[in-house]
Amino acid sequence: MSFTQATISLTDNGVMTMLKAAISKADEVGQPQCIVIVDASGETLGEIRMSGAKFLSRKSALAKALTSASTGGASSSIPETVRSAIGLATEGSITGLPGGLPIRIDGVLVGGVGIGSGTGEQDVAVATAALVAVGAQI
Amino acid sequence: MSFTQATISLTDNGVMTMLKAAISKADEVGQPQCIVIVDASGETLGEIRMSGAKFLSRKSALAKALTSASTGGASSSIPETVRSAIGLATEGSITGLPGGLPIRIDGVLVGGVGIGSGTGEQDVAVATAALVAVGAQI
Amino acid sequence: MSFTQATISLTDNGVMTMLKAAISKADEVGQPQCIVIVDASGETLGEIRMSGAKFLSRKSALAKALTSASTGGASSSIPETVRSAIGLATEGSITGLPGGLPIRIDGVLVGGVGIGSGTGEQDVAVATAALVAVGAQI
Amino acid sequence: MSFTQATISLTDNGVMTMLKAAISKADEVGQPQCIVIVDASGETLGEIRMSGAKFLSRKSALAKALTSASTGGASSSIPETVRSAIGLATEGSITGLPGGLPIRIDGVLVGGVGIGSGTGEQDVAVATAALVAVGAQI
Repeated sequence: MSFTQATISLTDNGVMTMLKAAISKADEVGQPQCIVIVDASGETLGEIRMSGAKFLSRKSALAKALTSASTGGASSSIPETVRSAIGLATEGSITGLPGGLPIRIDGVLVGGVGIGSGTGEQDVAVATAALVAVGAQI
Repeated sequence: MSFTQATISLTDNGVMTMLKAAISKADEVGQPQCIVIVDASGETLGEIRMSGAKFLSRKSALAKALTSASTGGASSSIPETVRSAIGLATEGSITGLPGGLPIRIDGVLVGGVGIGSGTGEQDVAVATAALVAVGAQI
Repeated sequence: MSFTQATISLTDNGVMTMLKAAISKADEVGQPQCIVIVDASGETLGEIRMSGAKFLSRKSALAKALTSASTGGASSSIPETVRSAIGLATEGSITGLPGGLPIRIDGVLVGGVGIGSGTGEQDVAVATAALVAVGAQI
Repeated sequence: MSFTQATISLTDNGVMTMLKAAISKADEVGQPQCIVIVDASGETLGEIRMSGAKFLSRKSALAKALTSASTGGASSSIPETVRSAIGLATEGSITGLPGGLPIRIDGVLVGGVGIGSGTGEQDVAVATAALVAVGAQI
């Protein structure tokens, strides 16, 4: 095994494109949102709190993004039976709340996007719009 | 869309008027209370821990105030099925405990008030008295 | 004295306009930056970590933004003799590092912008570009 | 030595009287202030952030109040040579910034008051006014 391996990462152009697409979708849905994008190490790349969004949803949107970046799956795919235990063991970073999706481009998990303030369906719709904008896997 | 939008904020006169009314109601009810008032971004504007109130209720009163300032609803309106999950994902900032009410004046959400130390009914009665004192929507 | 007072706040359109202008200036300068924008209570409205920016500069950029939003002045205007003391007393939130500027529009302090990763001069240049983009006072 | 000893503590009436006197003095001085009052264990009893005060001064005002409640002296009496070391060792709770005064009534140290947002002189003047209002030792 080699000491290093090739990977890819999101550029700021990718992040801004995702934020703009998410805002556009949130406007269309009529629900202001908190939007958070993290990299493959969970470090924030970009975020926006839209006018009228719930300010505490910044925290839950971050947890959703972290969950998806770490697990590679939708935040809602955390099994219900372990949600409390995993949430506690990760100081709230892992959540089963819907609205977190992994950002997978060219087969590589490059991070996660988390959306919060709306219903679960609204949050997922906005997260999906952000993924579509950069050609990420849905 | 403009770069800014008009809004209103609570003055310290408004905050002191709310604190006095809450203390007066708590005295009437016979239950000393922790009273916390936050602005529309969740930053504390004023608080009082009455003689005989539970000191840890400062924390729950803050969570109640934050919940109402963020969601625009009573803290007790957080659906029971998601309370644990949202509480974990927001580091305890969102709570379903009764005693948090939004401060909405002239149609604008200007913050939240949270009360803690009594029963749910006592906490809500004191929060309501604080709202009435500044002509906020009940 | 009234219970409320009129004010204004930044919209997400204002925040996105500032982020885009800051990125554009950083590209022109050739120094990737961390860009943080907070509201008048210090709650984050938006942020971007550009490709190649220092990830820990997210923290210093936040401190710069908070400093300017709280004091209404440039972060660099904190007197040198009190920087350590005030930094300690505010858990690092107040900093004298250059790169934080207040966002003042129509005479109202609506928040702060903080930039970090470059030299002090580069950080201030990028912060200034963000202010110009929304017609804020320089 | 006995297992217990008599002491006295501030009532909420005492705290509200101090807050009102501090606000009144701050209005007279023309500098909005953050005012924090803690008990003899450093637990917050009351606080107000006046309209136009610096929101980060809540933190430094708390540190000043804690310093005076803990040491029984003015925050500014912490010797300059040890300020950094003690500040670090107490996670910023001890500060030498002026504006913190002990609340000593009938010879008993019942807490501390901390003021922040103005000059050192303004902060001390407001803290003193709060002490005078409850007959505390100056």
